[in-house]
Amino acid sequence: LYDFTAEPGNVELTVKEGETITVTNANIGGGWIEAQNSRGETGLVPEDYIEHLTLPAIILQFPLRLFQASNGNDPWSVWNSDPSRGSNNNWAPSAEGNQTGRNAPEPWSSGTHSHPQAYQGPGAEDDEWDDEWDEMKSTSGYSEPGEGGAIQRGGTHASSMKISLNKFPGFSKSGPELFLLCKQAAKGKEKISIYLGEVGPVWFYPEAQLDCIVADPKKGSKMYGLKSYIEYQITPNTTNRPVNHRYKHFDWLYERLLDKFGSAIPIPSLPDKQVTGRFEEEFIKMRMERLQGWMTRMCRHPVVSSSEVFQLFLSYKDEKDWKMGKRKAEKDETVGVMIFTTIEAEAPDLDLAEVEQKCEQFSRFTKAMDDGVKEILTVGNEHWKRCTGPLPKEYQRIGKAFQNLSSVFTSSGYQGEATLTDAMTAAGKTYEEIAQIVAEQPKKDLHFLMETNNEYKGLLGCFPDTIGVHKAAIDKVKEADKLVNTNKITAQDKVTMAKRASTMSYALQAEMNHFHSNRIYDYNRVMQQYLEEQVKFYETIAAKLRHAHSQFTTM
Amino acid sequence: LYDFTAEPGNVELTVKEGETITVTNANIGGGWIEAQNSRGETGLVPEDYIEHLTLPAIILQFPLRLFQASNGNDPWSVWNSDPSRGSNNNWAPSAEGNQTGRNAPEPWSSGTHSHPQAYQGPGAEDDEWDDEWDEMKSTSGYSEPGEGGAIQRGGTHASSMKISLNKFPGFSKSGPELFLLCKQAAKGKEKISIYLGEVGPVWFYPEAQLDCIVADPKKGSKMYGLKSYIEYQITPNTTNRPVNHRYKHFDWLYERLLDKFGSAIPIPSLPDKQVTGRFEEEFIKMRMERLQGWMTRMCRHPVVSSSEVFQLFLSYKDEKDWKMGKRKAEKDETVGVMIFTTIEAEAPDLDLAEVEQKCEQFSRFTKAMDDGVKEILTVGNEHWKRCTGPLPKEYQRIGKAFQNLSSVFTSSGYQGEATLTDAMTAAGKTYEEIAQIVAEQPKKDLHFLMETNNEYKGLLGCFPDTIGVHKAAIDKVKEADKLVNTNKITAQDKVTMAKRASTMSYALQAEMNHFHSNRIYDYNRVMQQYLEEQVKFYETIAAKLRHAHSQFTTM
Repeated sequence: LYDFTAEPGNVELTVKEGETITVTNANIGGGWIEAQNSRGETGLVPEDYIEHLTLPAIILQFPLRLFQASNGNDPWSVWNSDPSRGSNNNWAPSAEGNQTGRNAPEPWSSGTHSHPQAYQGPGAEDDEWDDEWDEMKSTSGYSEPGEGGAIQRGGTHASSMKISLNKFPGFSKSGPELFLLCKQAAKGKEKISIYLGEVGPVWFYPEAQLDCIVADPKKGSKMYGLKSYIEYQITPNTTNRPVNHRYKHFDWLYERLLDKFGSAIPIPSLPDKQVTGRFEEEFIKMRMERLQGWMTRMCRHPVVSSSEVFQLFLSYKDEKDWKMGKRKAEKDETVGVMIFTTIEAEAPDLDLAEVEQKCEQFSRFTKAMDDGVKEILTVGNEHWKRCTGPLPKEYQRIGKAFQNLSSVFTSSGYQGEATLTDAMTAAGKTYEEIAQIVAEQPKKDLHFLMETNNEYKGLLGCFPDTIGVHKAAIDKVKEADKLVNTNKITAQDKVTMAKRASTMSYALQAEMNHFHSNRIYDYNRVMQQYLEEQVKFYETIAAKLRHAHSQFTTM
Repeated sequence: LYDFTAEPGNVELTVKEGETITVTNANIGGGWIEAQNSRGETGLVPEDYIEHLTLPAIILQFPLRLFQASNGNDPWSVWNSDPSRGSNNNWAPSAEGNQTGRNAPEPWSSGTHSHPQAYQGPGAEDDEWDDEWDEMKSTSGYSEPGEGGAIQRGGTHASSMKISLNKFPGFSKSGPELFLLCKQAAKGKEKISIYLGEVGPVWFYPEAQLDCIVADPKKGSKMYGLKSYIEYQITPNTTNRPVNHRYKHFDWLYERLLDKFGSAIPIPSLPDKQVTGRFEEEFIKMRMERLQGWMTRMCRHPVVSSSEVFQLFLSYKDEKDWKMGKRKAEKDETVGVMIFTTIEAEAPDLDLAEVEQKCEQFSRFTKAMDDGVKEILTVGNEHWKRCTGPLPKEYQRIGKAFQNLSSVFTSSGYQGEATLTDAMTAAGKTYEEIAQIVAEQPKKDLHFLMETNNEYKGLLGCFPDTIGVHKAAIDKVKEADKLVNTNKITAQDKVTMAKRASTMSYALQAEMNHFHSNRIYDYNRVMQQYLEEQVKFYETIAAKLRHAHSQFTTM
């Protein structure tokens, strides 16, 4: 709005009237904001000197974020406002970052710092994250301030939105009405089909399922070695041609998918941005495993995996091609609720009651499953702690006690002591081995049970947003009569709205059916694997003890 | 000494000059003692009005109790006075009653109240213990006060002795010198033989080993049902004729065996006198199990099992016969160190250095084994607590979490859910079953490991006394030259003393060899049993989990 000249030697930033700057931190306070200009310079600028630009992408993301802001800490309360459960429901779609409290699964809490500021280890790896952080800001435009608040990135954007509902009274240019009342369906080549399958509405599934392998993390560097990063190799089964991507590319992809599909399809957060401290290798391995899990889930999704932006990510050719693709993806306007314009359901329209009933059913289910999954994580985490802490210590002490008594016996000077003492020492050592086996077991079984449930926790955390969009659409359609009566919309608009709500419901049903089929597959697999490893565990111990037993003389 | 007339309505007891009364409590204070007259009346009597009668049995028991009194809390310090280990050594031969502290094995601490005053449950069973307590006092004469302090009964007699060593300067009529210098060997028919076996000096073992079964506890009553007690049936394998005895009869036998053999053979305490509270049946079962263990150990001992008093106990015919036998046993003068007069070793005399070396070796071994056994008890107790407390709770929670998630899945409304949910419910139930198995396992394996070690703790606790007698004898023999020089003994006395110390050493060695051979048998057996049950435990769980695993569909 006005010229502002920074005081020399200060942290301020000089701006000119009409210059476009990017707000990097709106929470400075004292009438200041932190911003970056087009030359990459960052500094403080008086809040009153600038005016917020509103970009279409941001508007379209509003519906997603609206419900979280409007419902306080409990996104589920859209449907279920039982206040007695409120304290348990302090979660958000990408709320891993909020789970650092008492109930956070400990082996999983290593993934809870999504903010580079949390970094307190030695500086070696600092660059990577700063680099990712900075570049992300300048390329994705995602740190643009929204209405009245900065939209933060990735993991925390939803819960940090502080937009009050009363800025969108009745009708607004955002929200599901944008789709419900848009003049015509998008004319792009994009088309997402829904069929009526055996289980109800289903997405169109490609014949060959896309899959990819995330492997071979390598340290790279740029700026003459000043900045270092880890590059992962991603090999799709379609091309079998590996492409390399850094975490920040995954993050960019995530943001694009969230923008584009988030209203219809839960896009789970990436494994958290994290600082490594001393356990770099273990961390990289864990991140790779989780990136693999995320990619597998995205590949499995027929709509996501066939999208242009996802294909771009998997078919990286050269930097130029990549940058062009990126720019195109960032300009995509079929994002937010507009994704529904591309959906075509080959089925009769649903009436509103049915739409609402389905929506409520899904909401109840995902909420209940979220509770169930969290229970497993809590219990599993306690079990993990016991199995790696006190339990092996106890077996070790039992083993030591046997061995100590055995060595006392050896000192007896009595003849014919050796068979007993050898056997007792062996028994003692067996219990020390058991201690080791017990301590290492969680990595073999509980780990996958926890990882799968953690993934589902993330996935389920996306549903309140997705369901919230539907709920808002339903509410809007319910208002239709009143709107017709007050001449705000025409009778034809009302018909269109109902039809489009039906389309949205088909999308939600297709997505739920996709979710269910994946869930059944995943839980079958993880339970089988868990039990298989548990059987091996008990059998191994039994065999060891049987051997120890055989060394005592029979009388 | 004088007449004393109780004030009517008071707690005092009237006594006549010359009347013999039994002191039931010498710790009343204020110049009073509690006593019981021959008519069974109890009350307070002025301390100065009475004179303490000293019975031979009491004098002869002194050596046993001397060492504990003289060495404070650590009877082992006779040999090993490492002060750094002192804090761990606060134990006494029958110190179960002292183990109520932090380190007491919990499932075993149920046997720690040896005093009826500790009873706080409902009064139903009170009579039994009061009855036993009272009768014991009047029959065994064991509550007579000793020199300067009351000798308490059974479990606590050793540590409560407060006799200071300086009351026995140089020579006294008690202590091992009683045997070392007695005019001639006892002329009774009693004879205990020691042979040189493969492992060194051994007792003479009878061809058929005595054994007996303690079973069938029955509630009896007397005084028109006013007093009730439990009678156990003891069936020796020799006669196969069951005899019935109450706990107090066992206790009487224990006291006789301790008096008679305690200087040469560790006589383990009986399972503690105990009050039942609400778990009467469980308590009776436990006491019976422990009485069985005690009887088995006594039967296995060639010297104890062939003794007249032990045979009397096993061959109870009628009350008259029993009372006669009892009176005779109580009058037995071959008790205390005099037992050594009956021992004949068919082996060349040992020189003092060898005697001393053996004694020190046994002392070190029994001390070390005592530490080892206590370590197992401590560790086993912690393990017991974990296995019956937090561990099954955790398995139960895992089971519940699986079942809860399964029931959420059931609510999905999605087709083809049943196979997964049935399998998950079954898996959850399996973990609940595992919780049960885990909780019940200690009774199947740890129990016997703990019982055996607890028995050995009791047995090992007798060694400081036994070894103390030997140490005192050795010291006395070492003084012999000086005593000859000061004409306190003759040169011939000195030779006799050395010879008799050699006999004592043979007895100690025979006893140690008996101990070792039993120990090897017992630990072989208990370790085998423990490991066998542990194998079964792990195999049962593995089988259950394998079954749970099989219910998931293979993909």
